Amino acid sequence: MDNFTFHNPTKIDFGTGKEQQIGQHLAEHGIRKVLLCYGSDRIKRDGLFDTVSKSLAAHGIEFIEFGGIVSNPLLSTVREAIALARGHRVTAVLSVGGGSVLDSAKAVAAGTLYDGDVWDLFIGKAAVTAALPVFDILTLAATGSEMNGGAVVTNEATREKFAIQSPHVFPKVSIVNPALMQTVSRDYLVYSAADVIAHSIEGYFTATVQPAFHSRMVEAIINTVIETTEALLANPADYDARAQFAWASTQALNGLIYTGTAGFSYPNHMIEHALSALFNVPHGAGLSVVIPAWMKWYHGRNPAQFERFARHVFGAANVEQGIAALEQWFDKIGTPTRLSQLGITEDDLPATIENVLNNARYFGIAELYTREAVATILRHAL
Amino acid sequence: MDNFTFHNPTKIDFGTGKEQQIGQHLAEHGIRKVLLCYGSDRIKRDGLFDTVSKSLAAHGIEFIEFGGIVSNPLLSTVREAIALARGHRVTAVLSVGGGSVLDSAKAVAAGTLYDGDVWDLFIGKAAVTAALPVFDILTLAATGSEMNGGAVVTNEATREKFAIQSPHVFPKVSIVNPALMQTVSRDYLVYSAADVIAHSIEGYFTATVQPAFHSRMVEAIINTVIETTEALLANPADYDARAQFAWASTQALNGLIYTGTAGFSYPNHMIEHALSALFNVPHGAGLSVVIPAWMKWYHGRNPAQFERFARHVFGAANVEQGIAALEQWFDKIGTPTRLSQLGITEDDLPATIENVLNNARYFGIAELYTREAVATILRHAL
Repeated sequence: MDNFTFHNPTKIDFGTGKEQQIGQHLAEHGIRKVLLCYGSDRIKRDGLFDTVSKSLAAHGIEFIEFGGIVSNPLLSTVREAIALARGHRVTAVLSVGGGSVLDSAKAVAAGTLYDGDVWDLFIGKAAVTAALPVFDILTLAATGSEMNGGAVVTNEATREKFAIQSPHVFPKVSIVNPALMQTVSRDYLVYSAADVIAHSIEGYFTATVQPAFHSRMVEAIINTVIETTEALLANPADYDARAQFAWASTQALNGLIYTGTAGFSYPNHMIEHALSALFNVPHGAGLSVVIPAWMKWYHGRNPAQFERFARHVFGAANVEQGIAALEQWFDKIGTPTRLSQLGITEDDLPATIENVLNNARYFGIAELYTREAVATILRHAL
Repeated sequence: MDNFTFHNPTKIDFGTGKEQQIGQHLAEHGIRKVLLCYGSDRIKRDGLFDTVSKSLAAHGIEFIEFGGIVSNPLLSTVREAIALARGHRVTAVLSVGGGSVLDSAKAVAAGTLYDGDVWDLFIGKAAVTAALPVFDILTLAATGSEMNGGAVVTNEATREKFAIQSPHVFPKVSIVNPALMQTVSRDYLVYSAADVIAHSIEGYFTATVQPAFHSRMVEAIINTVIETTEALLANPADYDARAQFAWASTQALNGLIYTGTAGFSYPNHMIEHALSALFNVPHGAGLSVVIPAWMKWYHGRNPAQFERFARHVFGAANVEQGIAALEQWFDKIGTPTRLSQLGITEDDLPATIENVLNNARYFGIAELYTREAVATILRHAL
């Protein structure tokens, strides 16, 4: 096991009705004026916006609205929100939505206190040294952003989907009410399942130091995602399945399963970010296409762990059957496994490969992910 | 899944050489004068005391020594240390040792800022509303105290082994260097294994709300403890096994596996605390005696979960075989499974039962743990 430091200061307030406490949480942190970020107007129709504004008002907290954040959130939107945050001198950012809204809120929180263009923080031109406190009410469980210091944003001008990582943008409080997720569409549920599985397996398969304890925790997460996704497809109102899915999703990317591991990378995310950046496909849908293709290409580098996966997740006899079982499971739940299902054809491969190679430099794994390797992986997904 | 709030602010600094950073961690929290708590003089002979004092000196931090804390730490000792902490006006408490030293340090941290006798905090006469910041260097992995807000102390006058629970006594920083644990005796290693298993199964078997995700995480912990204990018995210098054992031990009682569960209790601890309080047996040794006896008495109340345990931990076919497998495993590693091995005879049962019944009231489970029930469980352990 490698040396590590683990410090996750986010408070999780989990369960039914917890969104009514948001005003109190902000008040406990001395917040008087907050930027309220959200996506579509759905939260205004379903009553959540009303609940939040009442709770804020009850604690004397003023809020500035910033709606319209989309999936694969955009740099231009983040820049707009930063201008608004500065203009109104808010002292915190509140995200009401899923991972895209929350990642935008984190970027706004860091960008507002950075004396320059926020994209500098994504390309390593400057470090995040401060951020407004971030709070969130999560309405979609997938990204794990509610309990980590990461945020991913797409620069639509350069077609780059890049990230920041900083202890300053860990949410102070994340409210996770599984009942708010009941209206998530069937598509987004299965894309989310693929996303959580992706977070779990990146380290599991690629780490050069991967203790058995950590592999067991990863398998606990994946087996829970499989079981609860199937339960939710059968009955979207199954609160307990929704709750376990959400909490497993948080555990997949809050740092725990990566403690003490070493030498890992995020190749599936690296490849998928090109698909999202170029074709604006849902992140999870891109991942379920990339993962089986990548596994077919990669498994010979870590056969013992691929055998372990086959046995402990699918009760399968060998590596090939384990990979096939995951691909079949993606097919079964209805998340794509082929580029064609995303509307991406062979003609799109050259541009895709270029974008992936740019990501590979950004992710620091360009040596392994050569032009030829990336082409081979993408061809597995045709 | 039940509603919950999870907030674990402890920073874990894990790995080889990390104890050299202790001065820096205290300095980052503005500490200038600390009470340094420890157990035997072993840390002076093996160089750890020297490392710690040099690191503190390098950061200009003065320390007051308080040694001699024993296993099943005593209230009288805690009171002495509080007097010392007050007299020297220290602003933090540093524990260098295992769970007994750390629990004492937490009691001192809370007691120093309480205007009355510290035992009041253990019997619910007063609440912990403040505490000096607690830091620790862990030299034995078992209790999980390095990442939670609990502390257990024995009142030798009343023969009561009671606890405090407060967010104020979560350690600010816990240093866990598995290499420092290499000299733990064979006996204390196997007692620790029983302790970690006890922390994992109390909720697993007794909770009325126990999601499958949580059961999987518990099984990940127990299977890791079994595997690494056997590895360490074969080779005490196996760093990786020591590291996984330690980290699994932390996860067993840092709140994670209890999030969203409900209706659970700690009956094995309730019974064992009587054995420690009356006969001063090592806590883990008492637990390995109590657990199989308790399981034989309890399993009919939750047969599905006992079957799950049998299957997922020991690959056993049914409840009885699962319980027998755990008892045999305790026998195999050499931790006691009979009261007689602790020097406790049938003549001691009446006094033991009285003490357990007092604990049952304290633990709030007196209705189920009647005199007859406790007698039956203890007789299983004769």
